[in-house]
Amino acid sequence: MSDTVNHTLHDDSDDRPDERFDDRPDDWSDGRPGRHMAAEMAEQPDVLRRILAEGTSPIRTVAEQVAARRPRFVLFTARGTSDNAALYAKYLFEVRLGMPCGLTSMSTTTAYGARPDLRDCLVVTVSQSGGSPDLVASTRAAREGGAITLAVTNNADSALAAVSEFHLDILAGPERALPATKTYTAELLALYLFVDGLRDSWGHPGPHAAGDLAAKALPDLAESVLARHAEVKALAARYRFAERMVLTSRGYGYPTAKEAALKLMETSYIPALSYSGADLLHGPLAMVDNISPVIAIVTDGKGGEALRPVLERLRDRGADLVVIGSHAEVDRAAAGFALPTEGVAEELQPLLEILPLQMLAYEVTLARGQDPDAPRSLAKVTKTH
Amino acid sequence: MSDTVNHTLHDDSDDRPDERFDDRPDDWSDGRPGRHMAAEMAEQPDVLRRILAEGTSPIRTVAEQVAARRPRFVLFTARGTSDNAALYAKYLFEVRLGMPCGLTSMSTTTAYGARPDLRDCLVVTVSQSGGSPDLVASTRAAREGGAITLAVTNNADSALAAVSEFHLDILAGPERALPATKTYTAELLALYLFVDGLRDSWGHPGPHAAGDLAAKALPDLAESVLARHAEVKALAARYRFAERMVLTSRGYGYPTAKEAALKLMETSYIPALSYSGADLLHGPLAMVDNISPVIAIVTDGKGGEALRPVLERLRDRGADLVVIGSHAEVDRAAAGFALPTEGVAEELQPLLEILPLQMLAYEVTLARGQDPDAPRSLAKVTKTH
Repeated sequence: MSDTVNHTLHDDSDDRPDERFDDRPDDWSDGRPGRHMAAEMAEQPDVLRRILAEGTSPIRTVAEQVAARRPRFVLFTARGTSDNAALYAKYLFEVRLGMPCGLTSMSTTTAYGARPDLRDCLVVTVSQSGGSPDLVASTRAAREGGAITLAVTNNADSALAAVSEFHLDILAGPERALPATKTYTAELLALYLFVDGLRDSWGHPGPHAAGDLAAKALPDLAESVLARHAEVKALAARYRFAERMVLTSRGYGYPTAKEAALKLMETSYIPALSYSGADLLHGPLAMVDNISPVIAIVTDGKGGEALRPVLERLRDRGADLVVIGSHAEVDRAAAGFALPTEGVAEELQPLLEILPLQMLAYEVTLARGQDPDAPRSLAKVTKTH
Repeated sequence: MSDTVNHTLHDDSDDRPDERFDDRPDDWSDGRPGRHMAAEMAEQPDVLRRILAEGTSPIRTVAEQVAARRPRFVLFTARGTSDNAALYAKYLFEVRLGMPCGLTSMSTTTAYGARPDLRDCLVVTVSQSGGSPDLVASTRAAREGGAITLAVTNNADSALAAVSEFHLDILAGPERALPATKTYTAELLALYLFVDGLRDSWGHPGPHAAGDLAAKALPDLAESVLARHAEVKALAARYRFAERMVLTSRGYGYPTAKEAALKLMETSYIPALSYSGADLLHGPLAMVDNISPVIAIVTDGKGGEALRPVLERLRDRGADLVVIGSHAEVDRAAAGFALPTEGVAEELQPLLEILPLQMLAYEVTLARGQDPDAPRSLAKVTKTH
């Protein structure tokens, strides 16, 4: 029924990293609680390098084939972490391609049997495992309804890849930790390169036409961010006793806020609520006071600019505000984690923004005496009958 | 920037109900904290009657005109409570009309200046006040992009109605309470009647073709639900000291879960998280244990059936589960509020489901010594500069 539950079906109890990775020593994966999650977070620069080296060409080929079909509308189908990657792609399609997009309400197909007319629609199904039966059923129904179907998965042999007309392999290697990390950033990069390929096929102008070149800086930048354990540990101390957290952003950073909230909840069990900055000014702002710490993801660009009035409002209220963003934005807040955003296109920053937040979820969970690799809910799966 | 903030701009400090309403005595509106919210909750049966009597004909006329334009895709634009009404409409369009739908990410237009090609798209903007500048800007841009634009508002003289090609008036009368209640159910009914009009125009078969007749039972049923104060008060006692809450549902009841969470948060400040049942089986289930009470909205029909495995899982985990649904479903849970669902089409049940949850938000807030009419965030609006 869900990607995460499917993880528990892995028979693979081998603790060694994926054979496609160097078995290099890593001070985060020494057998203590959370070692799977730590190892997979640390793999991210290599995964990004692999996608750029081996994935770009097949992704661009698929983009050319899809572009030739001239879809006019895009629907995304996903759950959990992959749903947040799909939301990132929705921004890319809307802003960089001017295409109207929607997110599928899966139960309309699987529970209510709706069979919409999907001619001229590109249906993009994003799933780490590619094995969730409802995603497969929904994608099959979409194809029967006339859609161009594209699966984005970490498993080229999956049922989802088989049922879809096109497939992008995110090349992340097996994911063992229950909280998904490397497959999230891998999905983001694969989707970015795909949209970039569509732009080139359709002759879109603009400074980012050679996006695969701009993306080349990401692995090294990711590595520099992931090396800053001490800073993240200091931030984690702040949330040791937090009873709730609010995450906010606008534009390209909004999927980061949602993914960070999910990561914090599924590892530490802290109720973490995510809102776009505009929505936060509705009712939920009532919850923000000095006992509801706020993490704002301030993307360096138009999204961050649109968030500025919200940040001012939060400062007026005396909110405990931590900023993930450029050095300048972090300096303006009480605390934060400064990202190397200089020269990084706004639409690529989400690949860096999520890294300190993954690490934060991991460190907060350890600080609270829990194991990031073993969320309570999934430990109980075997009790279900 | 937001509907809710706009409420604070009302000069109208007159406490009398809208002149279009009977000034009938109401034991919930006697001057105590929350009297505006109480009065507006109690008005809902009359608002539904007014829409059925005065609104059905103009709504069907608009539906005929829109139907003649043969839109192929639908995009919804809204924030806060109206966004939850839009999500309800998304299910209606997908299930009852087989039309692919999406929810607008507004910042793509307002922050990033995207100008998508919206020919063949129906863009439905839902807003109580019809005055939010970003909704007006987004809708204007959609119309310029070739969309058929429809505003659904409580103010026929609003900027949003003016900028849209078509308009549905939800006839709810002025809303004074900061937490929206009567405008939510009014939006649901107006959108239901609109989709029903499209079905008739397009000759859709099926048992619900005469939906405006089926809807006629709603006002009396709503009145019977709203009369059950004592039951809701007893439920509210359960959450007096809750530090967080989880709301879940599937299908047509999912917008109810989201709206109930918003209502609880903006009145009581309890962090209330809403998930579709399928998403709850991902990471967030880790948070559900005996200190995270769960409210499940179990719509009587296919949505409720699809939720059943989730309910079993929650019972297995020993979750504190309260059910809003049919008598049979409530009997199976530890506690709940039984709705008169017999003979009510599944797609109409959301108009009843939200009522005990609005009342619950109100009663929990009073029980915690707070005023449902005066959320902290909005009391501070005047401090913003």
